[in-house]
Amino acid sequence: MCPHALIPFKPAGPKSRLSGILSPEEREAFARAMLEDVIAAARDANCSPVIVATELFDSEDVQITIADKDLSGTLNEVLSQAAGPVLILMADLPLATGPAIKRVASTTSDIGIVPGRGGGTNAIFVREPAKFHVDYYGMSFLKHIRIAQEAGLSCEVIDSFLLHTDIDEEDDLVELLTHGSGKSRKYLEDLGFVLSAENGRVGVKRPVQPAPAT
Amino acid sequence: MCPHALIPFKPAGPKSRLSGILSPEEREAFARAMLEDVIAAARDANCSPVIVATELFDSEDVQITIADKDLSGTLNEVLSQAAGPVLILMADLPLATGPAIKRVASTTSDIGIVPGRGGGTNAIFVREPAKFHVDYYGMSFLKHIRIAQEAGLSCEVIDSFLLHTDIDEEDDLVELLTHGSGKSRKYLEDLGFVLSAENGRVGVKRPVQPAPAT
Repeated sequence: MCPHALIPFKPAGPKSRLSGILSPEEREAFARAMLEDVIAAARDANCSPVIVATELFDSEDVQITIADKDLSGTLNEVLSQAAGPVLILMADLPLATGPAIKRVASTTSDIGIVPGRGGGTNAIFVREPAKFHVDYYGMSFLKHIRIAQEAGLSCEVIDSFLLHTDIDEEDDLVELLTHGSGKSRKYLEDLGFVLSAENGRVGVKRPVQPAPAT
Repeated sequence: MCPHALIPFKPAGPKSRLSGILSPEEREAFARAMLEDVIAAARDANCSPVIVATELFDSEDVQITIADKDLSGTLNEVLSQAAGPVLILMADLPLATGPAIKRVASTTSDIGIVPGRGGGTNAIFVREPAKFHVDYYGMSFLKHIRIAQEAGLSCEVIDSFLLHTDIDEEDDLVELLTHGSGKSRKYLEDLGFVLSAENGRVGVKRPVQPAPAT
């Protein structure tokens, strides 16, 4: 089994909820590093990554499709034309690993789904794309479960925290600095981010950079 | 394999970070409901639950041990005297299921561990308790990995969001209302809690109760 792995990606102005700790340029570079981690994990799971981007960017050796609708509309157009099983992976899952993605793609159900934290959908495997459609706004996990039920499709929830952990807010960076091993963790570390435990609560901190020596 | 499942529990004044939305009495009842969900899941995994409590309370048909030290000290005393493998489960894991716990207890490594969100340790299986000790303060996940390495013990990280999700703050209740199926979800629903999606962000809300009819 080697499904296409669709990875929606927004190159410009991503991850606005990290704007308190990362500059716009840093957020773009960080989002790009997370995308590269997801691509590497998809390949490790023998999936063929296809970036579904809101605009053209240098995606190196990865196939890219430009979205001309909103996220769900674009993905549903791809699903309606797909010849075989499709996996959809969010681009902000830097803890993704090949084995975790394989667990999703090797479900024996019609649909394999990994919820994101906060009601979303981080990964979904669709065996027969013509029979399913996605709806990513709001509580998409419960929507996708219902869409599958209404279409008579069996559905397995894959129990993975590596794929459940999406990176949106500062607290999420604790997970990346604790469990990550790819480019996005290195990117944060190169910026000086470290784990910090105060009064038993764990967070991240970014020490102020010293001024360059003159 | 039927290890004892130690479940540390604090009957009085639990879950203070939920005090903005639950009264002290409600927090005690909610913590108790979560404990019962964890006990049910442990039994479903063929483990024998043992509550390690800070004080006596009515634990019905579950064996109870009273802690006379801090959390780590008490658990380490139990580990040092244990005759066989031991599983330690936190009491605030209401998404725990038998299959998820079985994945931990059936590791082929010396240690099986599930990190909690925010650097903690939510579940840990210890094959030879005399060779290991726990240290739950702060970044306990990384500490436990290091303790295992220093003791020459192999360690598997079990990739489970059901066991990764501990309930400490209001946002965590989204996970319980989305994925839960036990007593603690029902407890929240009986209080009126519902999922709420505004501007695509998912949260929980507790509608104001109408005054009793007079």
